[in-house]
Amino acid sequence: MTDSERVIVDFRTEPAKYKHWKLGFDGPIATLAMDVREDGGLRPGYELKLNSYDLGVDIELYDAIQRLRFEHPEVRAVVLTSAKERVFCAGANIRMLSQSSHGWKVNFCKFTNETRNALEEATAESRQVYLCAIAGPCAGGGYELALATDHIIMADDGSTTVALPELPLLGVLPGTGGLTRLVDKRRVRRDRADFFCTLEEGIRGERAREWGLVDEVVPRSKLEEMVKRRATELAGRSDRPAGARGIALTPLARRIDGDGVAYRHVTCRVDRRRGVAEITIAAASAPPPADLAAVHAEGADFWPLALARELDDLILHLRTNEEEIGLWLFRTAGGADVVEAYDRLLSEHAGDWLVREVRLFLKRTFKRIDVSSRSVFALIEPGSCFAGTLLELALASDRSYMLDGAREGDARPPATVRLTGMSFGPYPMVNGLTRLESRFLGEPGRLDELKRRIGEDLDAAAAARAGLVTFAPDDIDWEDEVRIAIEARAAFSPDALTGMEASLRFAGPETLESKIFARLSAWQNWIFQRPNAVGATGALRVYGTGARSEFDRRRV
Amino acid sequence: MTDSERVIVDFRTEPAKYKHWKLGFDGPIATLAMDVREDGGLRPGYELKLNSYDLGVDIELYDAIQRLRFEHPEVRAVVLTSAKERVFCAGANIRMLSQSSHGWKVNFCKFTNETRNALEEATAESRQVYLCAIAGPCAGGGYELALATDHIIMADDGSTTVALPELPLLGVLPGTGGLTRLVDKRRVRRDRADFFCTLEEGIRGERAREWGLVDEVVPRSKLEEMVKRRATELAGRSDRPAGARGIALTPLARRIDGDGVAYRHVTCRVDRRRGVAEITIAAASAPPPADLAAVHAEGADFWPLALARELDDLILHLRTNEEEIGLWLFRTAGGADVVEAYDRLLSEHAGDWLVREVRLFLKRTFKRIDVSSRSVFALIEPGSCFAGTLLELALASDRSYMLDGAREGDARPPATVRLTGMSFGPYPMVNGLTRLESRFLGEPGRLDELKRRIGEDLDAAAAARAGLVTFAPDDIDWEDEVRIAIEARAAFSPDALTGMEASLRFAGPETLESKIFARLSAWQNWIFQRPNAVGATGALRVYGTGARSEFDRRRV
Repeated sequence: MTDSERVIVDFRTEPAKYKHWKLGFDGPIATLAMDVREDGGLRPGYELKLNSYDLGVDIELYDAIQRLRFEHPEVRAVVLTSAKERVFCAGANIRMLSQSSHGWKVNFCKFTNETRNALEEATAESRQVYLCAIAGPCAGGGYELALATDHIIMADDGSTTVALPELPLLGVLPGTGGLTRLVDKRRVRRDRADFFCTLEEGIRGERAREWGLVDEVVPRSKLEEMVKRRATELAGRSDRPAGARGIALTPLARRIDGDGVAYRHVTCRVDRRRGVAEITIAAASAPPPADLAAVHAEGADFWPLALARELDDLILHLRTNEEEIGLWLFRTAGGADVVEAYDRLLSEHAGDWLVREVRLFLKRTFKRIDVSSRSVFALIEPGSCFAGTLLELALASDRSYMLDGAREGDARPPATVRLTGMSFGPYPMVNGLTRLESRFLGEPGRLDELKRRIGEDLDAAAAARAGLVTFAPDDIDWEDEVRIAIEARAAFSPDALTGMEASLRFAGPETLESKIFARLSAWQNWIFQRPNAVGATGALRVYGTGARSEFDRRRV
Repeated sequence: MTDSERVIVDFRTEPAKYKHWKLGFDGPIATLAMDVREDGGLRPGYELKLNSYDLGVDIELYDAIQRLRFEHPEVRAVVLTSAKERVFCAGANIRMLSQSSHGWKVNFCKFTNETRNALEEATAESRQVYLCAIAGPCAGGGYELALATDHIIMADDGSTTVALPELPLLGVLPGTGGLTRLVDKRRVRRDRADFFCTLEEGIRGERAREWGLVDEVVPRSKLEEMVKRRATELAGRSDRPAGARGIALTPLARRIDGDGVAYRHVTCRVDRRRGVAEITIAAASAPPPADLAAVHAEGADFWPLALARELDDLILHLRTNEEEIGLWLFRTAGGADVVEAYDRLLSEHAGDWLVREVRLFLKRTFKRIDVSSRSVFALIEPGSCFAGTLLELALASDRSYMLDGAREGDARPPATVRLTGMSFGPYPMVNGLTRLESRFLGEPGRLDELKRRIGEDLDAAAAARAGLVTFAPDDIDWEDEVRIAIEARAAFSPDALTGMEASLRFAGPETLESKIFARLSAWQNWIFQRPNAVGATGALRVYGTGARSEFDRRRV
């Protein structure tokens, strides 16, 4: 790790603070224009020329996508474009990449991937359709960003091209889903994709359209008009409400105090000696709002939304700023009844645009856990409320331990877990299945059985029989069993754990998203580690120095 | 590369030469017993204790599986077991792994994966059902071998366990499909799989059965009887013929002469300067046998079978012994009519056990190309015969170049390509789709169009229009275009090419096999490259030395 990486990265921002993006509104159409400030890098040592980006640029993009969903119900189409005259986007900044540690690169790619997936989800689920208008060179991560939109319109002029030059220029892969989206989303023929991905200079004009790399090619002079027309058409198909008022994503309050991180409902204590982050999620302290109007009035204070924002921020913080903390321990605190009442509200008003956004945000946040390169355990003890939405935390864990019976000296009743309707659909994993479906692939009949037990309090024995928890030790065994499991985890190779967890978490079908995180990211991580990329004469290292890369030519 | 790796590995063997396996027959039931000779390692520097294995052991296993299919039509069930009294199998030899180069480890895992996939295919498609009888410790690659069978019976005694101790002991993954088969084939619950894979000592008895790690647990004294009973039951469901005579897989003639490798129908010239292997496949020189009896009489001389054996051996040879040769160029020579006539024979007699085996062998061989970490181009020129079965070589290529028109000074007619019925089903890729289905995912209607053109000679323009070839330069452009493409390929990072090709070749659905080669192998390769495994204090490096591994604890 270089010293410059020791800066604590803060994922919280807001439009007034954006350095790199311009957000404009015209009725149902928003424009999100990239305008990267060269000297606005997150860390020192590189200049963000030609709309190239680093994590800081992507944090703003992520924020903009979130705010468009929550603060702008009226927006039905979003035009992604560049505010620079001569370039669309040159992709991730190469000097930044070549200076970064392996872990930083991998984590950067993971976040940028999640952001592009969120953009696709906004299009598909929030019905806020993204389209892309390209004028000027659009290369690497720039084209991968375009690929995440649903419709790509490109100017037909001498300078506008799309390209994935990572392989010929840098000896790495387009790491943000580009290869997968080429052949799996846009279904570009594999031999054409092969040719395209080895071409430094990219492809322009009619050939790009014929090969399926873009959807439309129009003269530069007609670009603006055509983009507006398509955006209007796409906006017309959206189901977003007319006349609704957005809710403000007010600044997220967070206190970092030594090894503690505290939000309103989520707290975390980092235990460096054991390599553990102990995370506690508190249920709402009061019953949910009485009706939909009250939900909207609460806005960012609505407990499920506040919870999603806090947990999302904590995950990003731990991933980026606490690399050596290998095990996340989830606990919950509070009453299952109130959690279930909120779940009922989220179910009953699923059709409301705001409730839909809250559900989708929770879904994305749980997915972040699934693809985090950290071990995750859930500890289910007296006083906890692993019910419905919060039960997802246990189901997202690599293992769960549930205390069977009461604890000596603790007057609280034994822990129970509770299923709700939210356990059976709204929170699919990246493989497209719910965590229960993934869990019981081998016993699909169990799902119907479990549906019949919605609302029931399952004690440790019942939860273990139902397959909802891994182990259910009693008070006598608890401390040793849990302690040994935690200590053992800390002693294993962190890399092997990452590979094992990535292999065991996603049984069943594959989706574009799961392919990106499995196949593409895994290969990219491998390449990022190889001397041919990062060695003294590796392509990524020598880029821009005038030196030639020298490769070990053995194919692996 | 250590010097000991410079030995040329020969994949050709036969039962009389086996050092490590005992093959026994009892009517419809064969027994394949592992009995590894400690001093029989392929390379010096390690002892194959406790039925641990190296590539040499696996080459014999591969050969045995092939011969059972072709030489023993009467065998309907195969019992995989150990001939050692006290151990089933300790998995891949650790000292061998820790001494090996990165490339050797990766290539070793690829071959062992293909062999286990072939064993599963023999069960499913050849109806030669594999079952596994375990007595004594069965760990790591040993248990992964068991997982590849369809039924696992385990002795219930104090010493018999199944285990995947790679993560806790060695800091790597079970690299031969174990993790994937646990959750995707056997559908073991992910949290149980997580626990199991972190347990050095493994799991035995009833818990192993309850968790789905094995199918049956029986007292040691009843093991033999139960295995025989299950084998007999499983054999009873096979459709393999009664009274058929096997054909002998006679020794495969191969001449290596400097940089040339020559078989009867397949020749290869290695051009070290350009990093290219120029491979030419010759069509049969005479029409196919008149009837099925004549096919059986020809046996190993039957052209499609001879071709499969030769191409299979060449691929394995190039992968293992020619690591720096990064580009395979496929050409064909001969008449399309005779190739089509053979394809007709393979179609018409698909139900015959031997023809079925030939088709499956060709399928497996083409799949080896798909998962090879080499770039593959096809050159389609006058005198070639890319028809049906041989057209698969062009469809398996990353790109194909077809000469449009005649070549100056060459009296032969312009090249054509031809589809046959064999282009539409018998040769699926690891993703379960044919190469045409994968190619035209975005235009499924094209498949019906192409079916109507079976048997038609398509010249370069027609083939390009039909999407069957990538580029169709004429004689004036050919030399430059092909030369530049080959030179460019040789100049790219070999690692980035591997990652790109693995990402572009397999669009569409995923299967157990594709998950193994994509997710699992990619993660394993990454881990095999990481200091936590192979660095001075990495787990793989220090194993057995008494030293403790020291990990960089940053999670990536």
